[in-house]
Amino acid sequence: MPVTPLLYVVIPAGGSGTRLWPLSRAGRPKFLHALTGEPATLLQATVHRLDRLTVPEQTLVVTGVAHATAVGRQLPDLPEENVLVEPSPRDSCAAIGLAAAVISRREPDAIMGSFAADHLVRDRESFERTISEAVAGAREGKLMTIGITPTHPETGYGYLRCGAEVGPGPVRVVEEFAEKPSPDVAVEYVSSGRYLWNAGMFVWRVDVFLAELRRQQPALFDGLTEIAAAWGGPHQDAVLGEVWPQLTRISVDYAVMEGAAAAGLVATVPGTFGWNDVGDFDTLGEVLEPYDEVGNVVVNAAKTDSGEPPVLFHDAGGLIVVPESGRLIAALGVENLIIVDTEDAVLVCHRDRAQDVKALVDALKEQGDHQYV
Amino acid sequence: MPVTPLLYVVIPAGGSGTRLWPLSRAGRPKFLHALTGEPATLLQATVHRLDRLTVPEQTLVVTGVAHATAVGRQLPDLPEENVLVEPSPRDSCAAIGLAAAVISRREPDAIMGSFAADHLVRDRESFERTISEAVAGAREGKLMTIGITPTHPETGYGYLRCGAEVGPGPVRVVEEFAEKPSPDVAVEYVSSGRYLWNAGMFVWRVDVFLAELRRQQPALFDGLTEIAAAWGGPHQDAVLGEVWPQLTRISVDYAVMEGAAAAGLVATVPGTFGWNDVGDFDTLGEVLEPYDEVGNVVVNAAKTDSGEPPVLFHDAGGLIVVPESGRLIAALGVENLIIVDTEDAVLVCHRDRAQDVKALVDALKEQGDHQYV
Repeated sequence: MPVTPLLYVVIPAGGSGTRLWPLSRAGRPKFLHALTGEPATLLQATVHRLDRLTVPEQTLVVTGVAHATAVGRQLPDLPEENVLVEPSPRDSCAAIGLAAAVISRREPDAIMGSFAADHLVRDRESFERTISEAVAGAREGKLMTIGITPTHPETGYGYLRCGAEVGPGPVRVVEEFAEKPSPDVAVEYVSSGRYLWNAGMFVWRVDVFLAELRRQQPALFDGLTEIAAAWGGPHQDAVLGEVWPQLTRISVDYAVMEGAAAAGLVATVPGTFGWNDVGDFDTLGEVLEPYDEVGNVVVNAAKTDSGEPPVLFHDAGGLIVVPESGRLIAALGVENLIIVDTEDAVLVCHRDRAQDVKALVDALKEQGDHQYV
Repeated sequence: MPVTPLLYVVIPAGGSGTRLWPLSRAGRPKFLHALTGEPATLLQATVHRLDRLTVPEQTLVVTGVAHATAVGRQLPDLPEENVLVEPSPRDSCAAIGLAAAVISRREPDAIMGSFAADHLVRDRESFERTISEAVAGAREGKLMTIGITPTHPETGYGYLRCGAEVGPGPVRVVEEFAEKPSPDVAVEYVSSGRYLWNAGMFVWRVDVFLAELRRQQPALFDGLTEIAAAWGGPHQDAVLGEVWPQLTRISVDYAVMEGAAAAGLVATVPGTFGWNDVGDFDTLGEVLEPYDEVGNVVVNAAKTDSGEPPVLFHDAGGLIVVPESGRLIAALGVENLIIVDTEDAVLVCHRDRAQDVKALVDALKEQGDHQYV
């Protein structure tokens, strides 16, 4: 593998993953959980997946105050100053922009990649090749995104419209960012051959990104520049406390990437490395290896003395079972259910309704049952 | 209500209720649980239901060594000597016969009724009327059973074939005890108007019963008579230890009632008091008042601070939910499931498979997972 020693890795670790409730909680969001059958958490796996393209000194995690300690413990090799703690959530443009501004003061023409803390990648070597190709595009001055070659007409992701039909191989111009489509539109997108899934991964030179941020979001640029100038110094907390709360809440897609695409500045590299955003339990069930020959998936299981997970299935198939608390989960005569057992809450949900788990969390908040959220 | 001061009440409290696993366990069988929404356990409710027909001094419980302490604590008004503890399970004829033999030594022509510890009765006054009518039949020298007027062609119960069509009102001759029927046969039984459900409740003079026991099962009669003679005396334990293990394991239906019916000695009173044997979670769900207007039933719930049970249902109907551990149970987009949460095990089962929960318990035993049984 060609190593790209100058790559800075930025990992925005935010969001509570409410569609993975009751496993994922506000206080323990999904990126802090091991969900893949490996002992590594999603955050640790993200750092590990990139460690041949960078070094710990060039790896930064941006996270909220509630999770700073957990992030620090899960990533003991990361220098302390590389955990950037946001005083309050200000959406992805502030998070990624802060990292870009901080990196810019260390190395103004550094190349940085931004990678979500809670995605799965099946083929690490293919992933590394794609990122290296994106780095080459970034060196040329493009704001690179990683586009995933669609495997089906998914309606849960945004899409990238490319300038020409997309075959294997690197760098295409991105003409437009498209919202999550309706089922019909998704079929059109995929059959056209010109659309890729927007995986929310970006690679760019920080000077190019910050110039676009300044052009499109001057107030946000000024605020982040002021914070970055004070970062690590005696006035960091005072400046953060004053400036951060005033930053615009906006996603990086809306704030910068759409306008940059319209200006012809955005390109992409199609990836085929087996990507999944682990958005909900149904998706998770599709990604993981089944536990048995009838398609039951056991996630994140405490092992029993016998080394087997604490489950007992009779005439039960297509289940996604999460025995996090270690209690026995027995299932009889049921199919395609999600069953999650935690210390204080049990969820039983049809797989078709995995997207709606968020509604349960909303209901709990409304009822004032914050202990479960 | 006419009180029948001479009625002795015998409650065989055995069986582990494996179809109610994981709520019901070998160490904590169903009769020790409150399942009706009332604080009383099934055992306590059984004693309470009969307390206008008897007195604590004439109420006896026959139970196993594992449950003697719990029985004693749940029924503090019962004299100690009225808890008859079986050294090992020897089926219902030994249990009921022991009680009959012990009562016979106190009062040879006493009338005794035997009532399972784990059944539900909806209309107590109607139940009392039926028992009083059975007592009248027992005085005349019949071995009385309580027959339940069928409400549907149930295949899970045995039936009583009566000598003539059964209308409202008391005492009919029972010609035959019929095994659990196939669905077709059950329909025939119910449409014939001559069959009643066998509720496993008996009322008889102990002298009549013991005479039939002596005639049909002389060895069992001799053994029980020897034990009863030593009961409460200095040699009780020695005699029990020697004689009890040799007693025939046989149900009272097979041992005595079928032969007595053939001899014209058995009669019945049709009951319409809303009876249920709480054999499994599906049955339990049919008996209890729903929690909401879409037919969800919440059993045995620990109350939260708000006074509400810890459940959250979205687009979920026809569920039977048992939040025994007090954890929150959330259900989304599912129907007709049984969801039981206990300290160490969770069950998710389709209501149609409620009868097969026993198979899970068998599997756990086979695997050596006795901690869950």
